Amino acid sequence: MNPNPLRNSTGREVRHLCRTGAWTRPTPGAALGFVQANLVVVPQDWAFDFLLFCQRNPKPCPLLDVTDPGDPQPRQVAPGADLRTDLPKYRVYRDGQLSETRTDLCDLWRDDLVAFVIGCSFTFENALLSAGIPVRHIEEGKNVPMYRTQRLCQPAGRFSGPMVVSMRPMTPEQAIRATAICARFPRAHGTPIHLGASQTLGIADLNQPDYGDAVTIGADEIPVFWACGVTPQAVAVASKVPFLVTHEPGHMFLTDLRDSDLEGE
Amino acid sequence: MNPNPLRNSTGREVRHLCRTGAWTRPTPGAALGFVQANLVVVPQDWAFDFLLFCQRNPKPCPLLDVTDPGDPQPRQVAPGADLRTDLPKYRVYRDGQLSETRTDLCDLWRDDLVAFVIGCSFTFENALLSAGIPVRHIEEGKNVPMYRTQRLCQPAGRFSGPMVVSMRPMTPEQAIRATAICARFPRAHGTPIHLGASQTLGIADLNQPDYGDAVTIGADEIPVFWACGVTPQAVAVASKVPFLVTHEPGHMFLTDLRDSDLEGE
Repeated sequence: MNPNPLRNSTGREVRHLCRTGAWTRPTPGAALGFVQANLVVVPQDWAFDFLLFCQRNPKPCPLLDVTDPGDPQPRQVAPGADLRTDLPKYRVYRDGQLSETRTDLCDLWRDDLVAFVIGCSFTFENALLSAGIPVRHIEEGKNVPMYRTQRLCQPAGRFSGPMVVSMRPMTPEQAIRATAICARFPRAHGTPIHLGASQTLGIADLNQPDYGDAVTIGADEIPVFWACGVTPQAVAVASKVPFLVTHEPGHMFLTDLRDSDLEGE
Repeated sequence: MNPNPLRNSTGREVRHLCRTGAWTRPTPGAALGFVQANLVVVPQDWAFDFLLFCQRNPKPCPLLDVTDPGDPQPRQVAPGADLRTDLPKYRVYRDGQLSETRTDLCDLWRDDLVAFVIGCSFTFENALLSAGIPVRHIEEGKNVPMYRTQRLCQPAGRFSGPMVVSMRPMTPEQAIRATAICARFPRAHGTPIHLGASQTLGIADLNQPDYGDAVTIGADEIPVFWACGVTPQAVAVASKVPFLVTHEPGHMFLTDLRDSDLEGE
């Protein structure tokens, strides 16, 4: 797989390229070492319920920043950024259905919208790679495979629905090391939620992910599952949320934080 | 100092004694090993702002549980508990002023109240004691000294105001060990926010705490400051919140969690 051409850019530089429309592609490997993030935007009327949902479901939804109503600037993680323009691609959900994909939110933005910036697995994947633990979908040049599970999130107000997980195959010994490494990153989904028996999560076929791409699983490997930041999208559908905006999976928001900023405290 | 007579009780047993009115005294040392917690209750109209305040200020306000509006039961940390009756003593703030102290909230409770259960320093104090690090106010049989600082919290909506800190004197070597131990407990205020120069925080006289009691500081010791769960009370005053209920300082809510449940993930 070719490295991302934005590999040596800063988070700010990637945001600028997105803002000008010069970059609309996936962000894995971009601005290596900078924290990438999931985005969820809801109207203020739904913001308490969603904030509570994140508080009750910190593994799929570890919060990095929440904006004031109407403010598109995530002041804690990327001062000066504009969440309306600075992601490569967005998804708009209306009444619980994916309604459109677009490259900016300018004409959709409203004074009552609240944006949630949520930690992403790319942070711990960088740490796994640094530790010599292979990450299959990166080796194979694919998106990570993601699955809607039968495990339900803790409901909060009008939000309820299934947890989405991402899966990385590895040997049991690698899974143990990966668990220890990911424990350092509770704000990037933290430790796995399950390993081994995919049917326990209600996943019928690992070769048919609900989001992303299937990857090769070696004979000596087990599937290891992490809570995933795409969960709010599945929950938006299950909860028939009237209006909710997210990033396009794999097309993340680049913050100014460094991966090491998410370690522990 | 005599050990707390409820030292060997469970969290549930202490709650029952509070509920029946048999226990209205401070809780340090009660149900040793069970997580004690700060309480903040606000009307639903203020709940988003306060939840955002906690999200932006995780060191003074590490959230353990948030109830649904009107529900007095903290289902995640103490199923079956009743936050209206299960603390030994409460404070009611009206229009930013301490208006009364009482032993239950029964006739104050409303369908729109949301309760926030917030981690407490007792958790890391147990860990310090287990590691042989002395905790002065416990040695001297006092409440921990707490100070309103000039360090401002990150504002959120209508909430803004000063951070309150608790102080424990120790040698620099002990402060280093204490920092490493407290890093394991991000949901119990985590690492100190400052050590040494109390004037940096705007504290004029360590012998005159704003809450709790002054303690002895040895010649070889430095003051070590932790963000404190009394912060919402100072913020309620600074923000002139119309209606807010808290625990009486030192009179905490006993959960079913064990201290070890708060370690890391």
